[in-house]
Amino acid sequence: MSEKSLSHTKWMKRAIFLASLGKNTTSPNPRVGAVILDKNGSLISEGFHFKAGMPHAEAMAFNNLKNDAKGGTMYVNLEPCCHQGKTPPCVDKVISSGLKKVYISMEDPDERVSGKGIKLLKEAGIQVNLGLCKKESLDLNKAFIHRNTTKKAFGVLKWAMSIDGRIALKNGKSKWITNDESRSLVHSFRAEFDAIIIGGNTLRRDNPFLTTRGSKNPEPLRVVFTKSLDLPSKSNLWDCSKAKTLVIYDSSTANESYLSRIPKCVEVEKVLSDNPELISKILAKRGCNKVLWECGPNLATAAIQSNCIQEIITFIAPKILGGENSMHPFGDFEFEEMHEVIKLSNSQVSLIGNDICVKSLCKN
Amino acid sequence: MSEKSLSHTKWMKRAIFLASLGKNTTSPNPRVGAVILDKNGSLISEGFHFKAGMPHAEAMAFNNLKNDAKGGTMYVNLEPCCHQGKTPPCVDKVISSGLKKVYISMEDPDERVSGKGIKLLKEAGIQVNLGLCKKESLDLNKAFIHRNTTKKAFGVLKWAMSIDGRIALKNGKSKWITNDESRSLVHSFRAEFDAIIIGGNTLRRDNPFLTTRGSKNPEPLRVVFTKSLDLPSKSNLWDCSKAKTLVIYDSSTANESYLSRIPKCVEVEKVLSDNPELISKILAKRGCNKVLWECGPNLATAAIQSNCIQEIITFIAPKILGGENSMHPFGDFEFEEMHEVIKLSNSQVSLIGNDICVKSLCKN
Repeated sequence: MSEKSLSHTKWMKRAIFLASLGKNTTSPNPRVGAVILDKNGSLISEGFHFKAGMPHAEAMAFNNLKNDAKGGTMYVNLEPCCHQGKTPPCVDKVISSGLKKVYISMEDPDERVSGKGIKLLKEAGIQVNLGLCKKESLDLNKAFIHRNTTKKAFGVLKWAMSIDGRIALKNGKSKWITNDESRSLVHSFRAEFDAIIIGGNTLRRDNPFLTTRGSKNPEPLRVVFTKSLDLPSKSNLWDCSKAKTLVIYDSSTANESYLSRIPKCVEVEKVLSDNPELISKILAKRGCNKVLWECGPNLATAAIQSNCIQEIITFIAPKILGGENSMHPFGDFEFEEMHEVIKLSNSQVSLIGNDICVKSLCKN
Repeated sequence: MSEKSLSHTKWMKRAIFLASLGKNTTSPNPRVGAVILDKNGSLISEGFHFKAGMPHAEAMAFNNLKNDAKGGTMYVNLEPCCHQGKTPPCVDKVISSGLKKVYISMEDPDERVSGKGIKLLKEAGIQVNLGLCKKESLDLNKAFIHRNTTKKAFGVLKWAMSIDGRIALKNGKSKWITNDESRSLVHSFRAEFDAIIIGGNTLRRDNPFLTTRGSKNPEPLRVVFTKSLDLPSKSNLWDCSKAKTLVIYDSSTANESYLSRIPKCVEVEKVLSDNPELISKILAKRGCNKVLWECGPNLATAAIQSNCIQEIITFIAPKILGGENSMHPFGDFEFEEMHEVIKLSNSQVSLIGNDICVKSLCKN
């Protein structure tokens, strides 16, 4: 690699680093960082997108300019937008600034942009280089890209089990399988998500809070999917002062008279079947890039079957629960042969005290 | 620690290292290493025990002497024996050699020795120091010590499962959950064991070879425990040219007419109940220090309940099998509360390709 292209890579990596500062806060927007050099190649500004409604990375970089950008170069990890959203189109600013070159890692998968921003830049005589550090940029915004290309939220399924694969005793007791450290890690990593999904059984059995315990503000949306609507009239999820809650119910099976048990502060949506894809689509439409499924075996099985799960996080505690009818992470996939089973990949293993945490990709 | 005591530790660690050379071959004997210094503190000999019937470590060290041992010092990780076994008592040789001091890590738990060797040395005017590097020596011979103190073999339970805790599909198919590398690791680590135990179901379902595939000669004893004696007349375990096989059956439930299906080269023993402790005791009596339980859920559960399992090795493959009735590592322990469950400790995690291997201690 030449010294010149090494230098381009260096600046794009800086833009990607800046983008990563918006880690858990940009949804429904992507993570974007921008770097501006003057015509002599000196750094004169940088910016990143922090939160929807706040300036885009390019806009922040133009706001922060120390010198004239005319004849200069911009590095940005995502194609600049060309539509009026909550903030004005960035392409206009790039063109009016007099920049000569723009390095862009990847096209914006958002169909309102998707190549149109690049086209406008080129038409204005700006040299556009597309594809630098594309792999890193794809990874940085994988949830945003997934939502835009599939119209479903990027799903991560999490469960905690004993080393013999049980998520509860046969009487349903499960407090606690994993150690304090693992459970507190779960609270804090919920901050990476825009929504946390459980099923009616988990609500009835565990009555969870599903919050980050203050790591994220506002807290992720708490979502309950229920087939029956037979939910308790008292529940930690009904306290909307901590976090918002959304109940999604299957109107083909639910008893709508139970709706009266749910307080007014909780949003309610109905779907026409129990296909988890419908939940994922509703959440994607609401701008949730990345959602965490913390559900029991039935919903987890259906979520995998309907391609709602892209990653898996398993906490394994060094305990043996046993039990013929103890609860397991999944129900039946109806596999008849070993070659049919679901294969995970790219597993990363870490130790959380005496628990083991395994993260894997799930390509169904 | 003074320079002098550092030096003693150094020589005892050398003795322990020498002992470890007999890793998989000394059963029913312990692993023992011995170092001899002359009266000036120079190394003049060393030895270790390789195999039952061959010289003990002390005897080998005396056989290897380069100079006169008179006034010298011996370091040995286990109390020298004082009984006539397959080889003469070591204590006599130590006394007649004129050694002045003997450093011993720990007493021999074998009741034929157990302090008597040390007593004889002291009575002969030899200075005996007991306890140097005791922790390391206990660990080195933990299986031998366990057998001598409990009259049961030290048991390791191994199973392979998917990341959702299943050891087979609901139709019983399980070839293969783990990867080639894990399975070949299992073959080679069988060499650490004196016997490999399965139940009748595993024999009928998997028809395994249970050998090290040549890593150990002779191969570990293959043991089948059966309640019914309803074993097939053709089985890989009936080929005694590869390894010896022992069938243990519960005479309270077995149909002894099935004995005719078992070829003459296979040994048969009967027990009066299905308590796995009886298997462990039979194997201990036959000199098996360390045995590997590769059995299915029923026998595994009973083996844990009867304290036959001291360590656990779990292979976890990044696959999801699911299935309401898929096979699990264990049956029912009848736990009603989470505080009752079996807690493992000292887990060590390693990656075998994309599989995860967890080794833990099991103190029931």
